[in-house]
Amino acid sequence: MDGILIVMSGFSGAGKGTLLKRLLNDYEDFAFSVSMTTRSPREGEVDGKDYFFVTKEKFEEVIEADGLYEHATYCGNYYGTPRAYVDEQLKNGKSVILDIEVQGAKQIKEKFPDTLMIFVTPPSIKTLRARLEGRGTETKEVIDKRINRAKEESLWIDNYEYVVINDDLDTAVKEMYGIIMAQKFQTKRLGGFISDIKNELENI
Amino acid sequence: MDGILIVMSGFSGAGKGTLLKRLLNDYEDFAFSVSMTTRSPREGEVDGKDYFFVTKEKFEEVIEADGLYEHATYCGNYYGTPRAYVDEQLKNGKSVILDIEVQGAKQIKEKFPDTLMIFVTPPSIKTLRARLEGRGTETKEVIDKRINRAKEESLWIDNYEYVVINDDLDTAVKEMYGIIMAQKFQTKRLGGFISDIKNELENI
Repeated sequence: MDGILIVMSGFSGAGKGTLLKRLLNDYEDFAFSVSMTTRSPREGEVDGKDYFFVTKEKFEEVIEADGLYEHATYCGNYYGTPRAYVDEQLKNGKSVILDIEVQGAKQIKEKFPDTLMIFVTPPSIKTLRARLEGRGTETKEVIDKRINRAKEESLWIDNYEYVVINDDLDTAVKEMYGIIMAQKFQTKRLGGFISDIKNELENI
Repeated sequence: MDGILIVMSGFSGAGKGTLLKRLLNDYEDFAFSVSMTTRSPREGEVDGKDYFFVTKEKFEEVIEADGLYEHATYCGNYYGTPRAYVDEQLKNGKSVILDIEVQGAKQIKEKFPDTLMIFVTPPSIKTLRARLEGRGTETKEVIDKRINRAKEESLWIDNYEYVVINDDLDTAVKEMYGIIMAQKFQTKRLGGFISDIKNELENI
């Protein structure tokens, strides 16, 4: 059976990155999506592993050819999710989780209605603030900015089919895995099996 | 959190009864739904445990008062699923699985869109026939009738959100449990939590 394309979004500080790492580490069902970018490789970064590094011209060719699930510009560089790579993983039965912000996520869902949409949130905004402050690396101004961003993002939650409350990480990892596994039994994903059963019944 | 109302349907011989018993036995999250009937109690049957035994008049009063999730007549007697009892279990956080045929199932889904719809099937019709024959208690005529009934029922599968293929019972029990647990993280069932988060963000 093909893998499942999953979009994960959530408030900054909700722990999406850690969740994603744990899923990739704890379960064999997942593949990592390697992004494509026009920015230069940093020291130690490997082409095809950390990113696919390409020129601006190449990137725009790929956009033209509808070769990306989504893309955005950030600090003057393109970033995007190559379709060919993701599709190959899905065909191999691996599920692929894309960590994408709310607007890009909505676009993917519109284009690919079978995408599983999961929103990750801390148990409360109080906890979110405490986590951001606890990092000790960010100014009050930056933290306020993130909380305000969370306010905007919260308006998009209804576009997501599932909400994972990341209170205890181990629990959240298991819940997210359970949500993804359950999708495999969705009627809409079992079209082949259901056709077989119907054919068998037709030919009795 | 409230429990989930689940409708389970499936071909006769798919093993629904055994699945249901195992779920009730293996997990504490479930409550049994006690049906209401106008038929007389058989020896050893306990009112309120095996069935709620009532008169025809009482049953029709309950229908009038919209007190049943669904009902049907069989061999001149009424059978139905009392709402009050099921609702009480749901409020207590127990999920309730109703074993209902395809037409009644569709009615429940239309009336209560949050109902989780699961269809149980054997891995193939060949297996279904082998199971029915293996029981050794049924004539070829009865088996053919059941297979023909399966043919009709198969046209309703698309009304179900999930399909559980009951090949190995232990696996099917775990899959069904996983499907049900995953529902708890559906955005539509987390309205209270999401409101709390939004309120917190509003009042920053």
